Amino acid sequence: MRVIFNESLKAVADDLDHMARNVRDAIHGAGQALLNADLDAAQTVIDNDAETDALSTSIVDQCVELLARQNPVATDLRVVVSTMRLAITFERMGDLARHIAESARRTYPDSPLPQEIVDTFAQMQQFLDVTADRLVTMLADRDTKVADQIIHDDDVLDDLHKKTLEFAQSEDFPGTNPQLINVVLIGRFMERLGDHAVSAARRVVFIVSGFDPSKEPDRDEGTDID
Amino acid sequence: MRVIFNESLKAVADDLDHMARNVRDAIHGAGQALLNADLDAAQTVIDNDAETDALSTSIVDQCVELLARQNPVATDLRVVVSTMRLAITFERMGDLARHIAESARRTYPDSPLPQEIVDTFAQMQQFLDVTADRLVTMLADRDTKVADQIIHDDDVLDDLHKKTLEFAQSEDFPGTNPQLINVVLIGRFMERLGDHAVSAARRVVFIVSGFDPSKEPDRDEGTDID
Repeated sequence: MRVIFNESLKAVADDLDHMARNVRDAIHGAGQALLNADLDAAQTVIDNDAETDALSTSIVDQCVELLARQNPVATDLRVVVSTMRLAITFERMGDLARHIAESARRTYPDSPLPQEIVDTFAQMQQFLDVTADRLVTMLADRDTKVADQIIHDDDVLDDLHKKTLEFAQSEDFPGTNPQLINVVLIGRFMERLGDHAVSAARRVVFIVSGFDPSKEPDRDEGTDID
Repeated sequence: MRVIFNESLKAVADDLDHMARNVRDAIHGAGQALLNADLDAAQTVIDNDAETDALSTSIVDQCVELLARQNPVATDLRVVVSTMRLAITFERMGDLARHIAESARRTYPDSPLPQEIVDTFAQMQQFLDVTADRLVTMLADRDTKVADQIIHDDDVLDDLHKKTLEFAQSEDFPGTNPQLINVVLIGRFMERLGDHAVSAARRVVFIVSGFDPSKEPDRDEGTDID
């Protein structure tokens, strides 16, 4: 039984790593689409999201199967339940990256954003690119140090997000209303990508250390319009 | 063992019903706050969200405990896993209702919305009020007819949401930029509340019938700026 369990768990962990790499690629691609008006990149992100969704469904199914057949307890159970939740979080991250890519496709060949705020979004994207790479490393190596970095650094993204909202609220906002809507929604999608990365990082800390991340305060604290 | 399992499952089902009632109250209260500038209602929604979060954590813990001690299979396993996922969905719905209440508190005693679009938001709220009541009934009675209604009717909310975005994009938008941001974000929060209700309804259909709702197309199809 133990051998079967470990083999099954290895298979589902491989799928989860695959999902994390997909999400990383989607985040990188969404940034290319957003900042470089790269239509191919946008389309690739949009097309590939279906595979990420399918992986999520498959991972949850495999976990349910493992629970039924192997009755894992203690650490093994923690890993299986956390794997399910990580898959659901990654699926959502894929959706958010797709939304950003869709925004870029919609306004192509123009940028969805007014020029004056592109630099702030480029900083947010740079942050998310690093976070996306960290997600993959964290998961492949079960590395809680990398997870801690993700959790610790998230304030940087929140501050940048606040800057974009202040810009959007200014009376002399230089763009059109559709651009203003893009600033607000794309900013929110990026902030939520950061929140989900933190939630994933907490879950990896939980898997490795047994410290329960769900007892931590909620990350979505409604800084949306602050 | 079977008796213990049924008793434990009954306890967690009661907590999930409790959570659904909390979410219903939060949705009703957020609507009061948004449409009637009701500061008390806003504050109540914001304050009560902590209890909803705590219930979610407790439900997931109880489900993990059940998986460890009782090794449920087949329908029982399906119910336990779906219960965990419903708790996570309800927690997110509580967050979204809180965000709407926070928007109303921020602009009190003024409305966060320009007068010209209030009627459309009132229609969205009316829709969500009905959906919130249906969620409670659906869950208490494991009623797939009510679940089907939630799934079927969601297009109405999406159409109203599109109307608010068209309004926000119009060149002669009559409000300030902060009001425009509120139209976009509150509209999105309400649309997401509808999406999560659909996801919860699919999960109840799955519990009762065994039909897997996760094989259905994703509900968050990026109609955000269409």
